[in-house]
Amino acid sequence: MNRARLPVAAAAAALVASPLAAQRPMQNVAVPDGARVRQALEYVARTEPQTVEEQIAICQIEAPPFKEARRAEDYRRRFAELGLAARVDSVGNVIAERPGAPGEPVVVVSGHLDTVFPEGTDVGVKREGTILRGPGIGDDCRGLAILLSVARALEQGQIRTRGTVVFVGTVGEEGAGNLRGVRHLFEREMKGRVDAFISIDGTGLGITRDAVGSHRYTVTYRGPGGHSYGDFGMPNPVHALGRAIARISDLQVPSTPKVTFSVGVIEGGTSVNSIANEASFQVDMRSVDSAPLDSLDARFRAAVQRALEEENARWRSDVRLTVAIDTIGIRPAGTQAADAWIVRAAEESGKRLGFTPPAIASSTDSNIPIALGIPALTIDGGGNGGGAHSLQEWFDTKDSHLGTQWALLLVLTLAGVR
Amino acid sequence: MNRARLPVAAAAAALVASPLAAQRPMQNVAVPDGARVRQALEYVARTEPQTVEEQIAICQIEAPPFKEARRAEDYRRRFAELGLAARVDSVGNVIAERPGAPGEPVVVVSGHLDTVFPEGTDVGVKREGTILRGPGIGDDCRGLAILLSVARALEQGQIRTRGTVVFVGTVGEEGAGNLRGVRHLFEREMKGRVDAFISIDGTGLGITRDAVGSHRYTVTYRGPGGHSYGDFGMPNPVHALGRAIARISDLQVPSTPKVTFSVGVIEGGTSVNSIANEASFQVDMRSVDSAPLDSLDARFRAAVQRALEEENARWRSDVRLTVAIDTIGIRPAGTQAADAWIVRAAEESGKRLGFTPPAIASSTDSNIPIALGIPALTIDGGGNGGGAHSLQEWFDTKDSHLGTQWALLLVLTLAGVR
Repeated sequence: MNRARLPVAAAAAALVASPLAAQRPMQNVAVPDGARVRQALEYVARTEPQTVEEQIAICQIEAPPFKEARRAEDYRRRFAELGLAARVDSVGNVIAERPGAPGEPVVVVSGHLDTVFPEGTDVGVKREGTILRGPGIGDDCRGLAILLSVARALEQGQIRTRGTVVFVGTVGEEGAGNLRGVRHLFEREMKGRVDAFISIDGTGLGITRDAVGSHRYTVTYRGPGGHSYGDFGMPNPVHALGRAIARISDLQVPSTPKVTFSVGVIEGGTSVNSIANEASFQVDMRSVDSAPLDSLDARFRAAVQRALEEENARWRSDVRLTVAIDTIGIRPAGTQAADAWIVRAAEESGKRLGFTPPAIASSTDSNIPIALGIPALTIDGGGNGGGAHSLQEWFDTKDSHLGTQWALLLVLTLAGVR
Repeated sequence: MNRARLPVAAAAAALVASPLAAQRPMQNVAVPDGARVRQALEYVARTEPQTVEEQIAICQIEAPPFKEARRAEDYRRRFAELGLAARVDSVGNVIAERPGAPGEPVVVVSGHLDTVFPEGTDVGVKREGTILRGPGIGDDCRGLAILLSVARALEQGQIRTRGTVVFVGTVGEEGAGNLRGVRHLFEREMKGRVDAFISIDGTGLGITRDAVGSHRYTVTYRGPGGHSYGDFGMPNPVHALGRAIARISDLQVPSTPKVTFSVGVIEGGTSVNSIANEASFQVDMRSVDSAPLDSLDARFRAAVQRALEEENARWRSDVRLTVAIDTIGIRPAGTQAADAWIVRAAEESGKRLGFTPPAIASSTDSNIPIALGIPALTIDGGGNGGGAHSLQEWFDTKDSHLGTQWALLLVLTLAGVR
């Protein structure tokens, strides 16, 4: 999860213009009730300690970026032990299907396997009262554990859903992973099959309704380099970089929908008295609306090119710098109507459990389906937490069963109960 | 030695305006002749193999920046063994005096003890025919060995000089050393006593007549930093840095005298999606003429300040960035007339030995006396070489005795023979 907590209110004005806003015809939301459902909700509350134990056990298996295989195999085994057909797909996603009736919708409920932590990180989890401390304990061991609890409740209660429920542990949600797991799911593995997508990611009781898209690049200026005095008069890659960043700094962006840009990391040069042969920067641009994000992207590229031309034109030299723009990651943006079917389903499910989930915009696995116009959102996993992406990450299990119940009830609302 | 090989012709136009050009009343240059001098010249040629052995032996004692003590003590001992009063001063310079007649000039002849190579560098010297390979073998083990040979020749030939000859091995000539050894010599140790200063540095048979001054700084922009999306709208230190470098890139400088500037190293940021809390760059500005260098320095500072103001003004935010300019090193600039007494002395000495030394501008220990208006220059140590400041540094001993003879004859010309 790559979250910036902000209300989506500001972004709402953009909805009218978004082709994704209308998505699908409105559907009725019917949060299921009845004895079996109530028993299942009681079951996940009662067995929440077991869910927390699984959350810890999963988390103590390393899952560094691009190296989720060991945790994935363990996770697959846990679904298999519940009696579900579970497999690992070609990119490493764990997929466990629980079939519904033929012709009925397919609901995917997912958490992500990967963490931001490199190999060798101490992933031991410590308990202090209701607090769990450990890298990844909330983001997203919490989501992974909830999926298992939901699956167990459905099996134990012998609940037959109308639609098919597919539990998925995705790879590559974080950073350079660039959503590769969920991309594969929608582009290959389950292409055209998914009617609704839920990601359970992080802590609290909120909804990620809108997808913050991001365009991230590394820009590198290159030249022969030389001696700062002896070779003076040669275009300087660091100077070209400065010109580009100066231009980027003055780009104008709308505040509604929110559009942002930041040059985050710079690098270049070997010594104070050398003209560098290479200088690079990393830029991050984001918005929930793809149109202004694409416009910003185009102006960023123009700035990079213009800086190159300016620095080359500055000197009477045969040397010409070059520039390369390499993609770090592209995450598509998307918004949904505040009264979209899946949003109302999440809200109504929460209300049934006694809380009103706030909606935010963030960057999660749901970015991919939201951008495709498929009903999707990310819900928090309950409890409370902080320090995501840091070694000090923590999760408070107090009332965390509410998150598990919410996930279960939302899945049953979307899939329907026979 | 920190050399950019270029003819001083281009800088000559600045001489008229330089207060240092006139320096001292013109003196006659009389290159001494006579049997004793000729015998001494023959002696250093004959014992050149011993000089080369000493060059190697000295070089195989590490002398990293700010850690010249071990080589210094060895070097002091070598002068003491020749019968000279030799000591190590409070900053680590080795000083060995050979008194002349009272009231006569004091001539300092020096080499530098320090290298650019860090502790732990393999400083073993390899011989392949006439070629020596080893870090520092030319720069400046060559100069150090020549000083010993000159002292030995004077002692062995019982030559009485009119002036006092002071042999000095300086510390801190390279990089961050910032000429601290020679500074101490002129500001404290021998303040007001030096009438002429010769540094022997590097390889070849050229003269460094003009002192390339340099101003080097680290500029650091700081702010609280934050999340690229969540905290968007906060001034960004990397953006301020870009604005500063862009302004610096467009500074205009005269070509005669040559004035240069370069942003060499940049650093900042922790991740693509964070607003950095710190971003810094290192800048190098140089010239043989202090007036345009000072003007450039002032415009650089204005650019740094203006960039700060622009970035702070760009956003409606309570956050204000700050900036700090830290000095890496300041080396004073200075030029001398092409017919200055000490320059003619070096040229006439060379001609007597059969070669005409070309004059260049460079940054050496002589920067300090040249800027003070004291007759000073740096001569090469003979032979041939390359790869200075690299682990591949080499020195070719072919005809290297010419460098030793030149140094001897120049010392005798400046000090006079009784």
